[in-house]
Amino acid sequence: MTDPHVVLLVGGVGGAKLAVGLAAHLPPEGLTIVVNTGDDFEHWGLHVSPDLDTVMYNLAGVANPEMGWGLAGDTLEALGMMTRYAGPSWFRLGDRDLATNLLRTAALRRGETLTAVTRTLSAALGVAHPILPMSDQPAPTVLDTDQGPLAFQEYFVRERWQPVVRAIRLGGVEAAPSPQVMAAFEQATAVVLGPSNPYLSIDPILALPGIRSQLASSGAPCLAVSPIIGGQAVKGPAAKLMAELGQDVSSFGVAEHYEDILKGIILDDVDQDECPSIEALGIRTISRPILMNTPADKARLGREMLEWIQELTP
Amino acid sequence: MTDPHVVLLVGGVGGAKLAVGLAAHLPPEGLTIVVNTGDDFEHWGLHVSPDLDTVMYNLAGVANPEMGWGLAGDTLEALGMMTRYAGPSWFRLGDRDLATNLLRTAALRRGETLTAVTRTLSAALGVAHPILPMSDQPAPTVLDTDQGPLAFQEYFVRERWQPVVRAIRLGGVEAAPSPQVMAAFEQATAVVLGPSNPYLSIDPILALPGIRSQLASSGAPCLAVSPIIGGQAVKGPAAKLMAELGQDVSSFGVAEHYEDILKGIILDDVDQDECPSIEALGIRTISRPILMNTPADKARLGREMLEWIQELTP
Repeated sequence: MTDPHVVLLVGGVGGAKLAVGLAAHLPPEGLTIVVNTGDDFEHWGLHVSPDLDTVMYNLAGVANPEMGWGLAGDTLEALGMMTRYAGPSWFRLGDRDLATNLLRTAALRRGETLTAVTRTLSAALGVAHPILPMSDQPAPTVLDTDQGPLAFQEYFVRERWQPVVRAIRLGGVEAAPSPQVMAAFEQATAVVLGPSNPYLSIDPILALPGIRSQLASSGAPCLAVSPIIGGQAVKGPAAKLMAELGQDVSSFGVAEHYEDILKGIILDDVDQDECPSIEALGIRTISRPILMNTPADKARLGREMLEWIQELTP
Repeated sequence: MTDPHVVLLVGGVGGAKLAVGLAAHLPPEGLTIVVNTGDDFEHWGLHVSPDLDTVMYNLAGVANPEMGWGLAGDTLEALGMMTRYAGPSWFRLGDRDLATNLLRTAALRRGETLTAVTRTLSAALGVAHPILPMSDQPAPTVLDTDQGPLAFQEYFVRERWQPVVRAIRLGGVEAAPSPQVMAAFEQATAVVLGPSNPYLSIDPILALPGIRSQLASSGAPCLAVSPIIGGQAVKGPAAKLMAELGQDVSSFGVAEHYEDILKGIILDDVDQDECPSIEALGIRTISRPILMNTPADKARLGREMLEWIQELTP
């Protein structure tokens, strides 16, 4: 067997936790984390990449432990002053977080790629495992809602995901995956879909031209960790969105959504009774405690995923 | 006599204090503050206008009272994080101050003029008196030093004005004063040169094409407050620079520097003995306590300047 090379697809907090769990067991050359950039947007004139930063901060061990995103101990002095200017204050960029966004924005304006500046920032924070933005081109997610079309962060943060979603437009269909992302997929011995929002975090990556065909032609099994536990999303709008889009709000619904690419899914012990119906789709299942609250939880689930990959890889 | 309209030319802290002193006695339509932008530069991808902000913060009553620049109570979390990224950390932008710089930079990128965005920011902070950048075009000051050419902030902040200056190149000679600045000069009943660095703060404004000829043809007297007290600059490199450029380090030296435009200068009581030699240049003098430590100091010197203007205006 060749050395394992896991390509992990993630969005924000949930995916970042699994990234930490896998990174605990794999060397930098054995794990590539491909991150959704459909949420990226310009705010205060800065290029903000919420998912990239969430993954980077978690891998660096500097993420805010309560929220799972943002920097531990960060403050909001700039935001307070912004409010005094009656500037936009609905998106909370912390003061320390501004340094990340300032450096990224300046680098992009100098002509660096998002991939390059992410590598520079990650290295400065001591992150060894490669974090790759899914694309170096803009690929914004837009939601068609009962309040009209909303850019991702307008829906997610400004409107606190309360509008009813009727359809999702993925900017990725018109963007190209970066060469680094394509290379990672070509070397992959397994592809893991993190416990992230299937529609808003994973689909944007899968929508990039060439990704699905690469997945289909590669022998690497595609495995997921369910983002749904007991009919609820661990965090964010996944459950609400699945219901609005007519999908069963369950790990079965997640498996069905990924049906054409998925070889197996790890779901929570409380959802064991869904295993037979998922297996009936031709998708394997194992159940584990999948809620990751502690570093030990992350490392354990990461290890269990790797053991399962080994079991499923010829 | 027409209603007075004072045009005050300033750089940073010293000039800002006199602006506050004059604003205490003049309505917004009676005072226009024209601010040096030769110090403006790009830092962390932001358009930083140190003198504009110093004047704005002082007039808004939100300046850091110890330093005279920056915002009272500001913090340095972004700077700390920037250091962690090994990003440039020699220029200290506070977290609250970042809001100002972010909004300005975004507005300029949208195509707004520096004049327009300064008006918006000032209004939001409750500043009623117009603060005008000297130009809407870049007009960077470059210093030829014993360490080679240095951009203003490299000389002033990064090198703490220690290099020996051989010559000063004013970007203003190739820029145009804004229409608002020209209009203010045309309406001026008096032009006041603030107690700012003659070479680095006032000369950049006077170097703009059309300003000196407007001054010469207008009947408005040009009066100064000396930035030198007892052979020392109140703040910054004025005295060191005057010596390096072969100028007498005194209020006499300041008066001589401005000789072709100056009608009178207020110097400090401790420098009274310089009055005869200045008067011999055809420049009137009065002596007062010109060190402005308290709000009362500023208001008193402002009142004394206005009384003198009235006395000198036919």
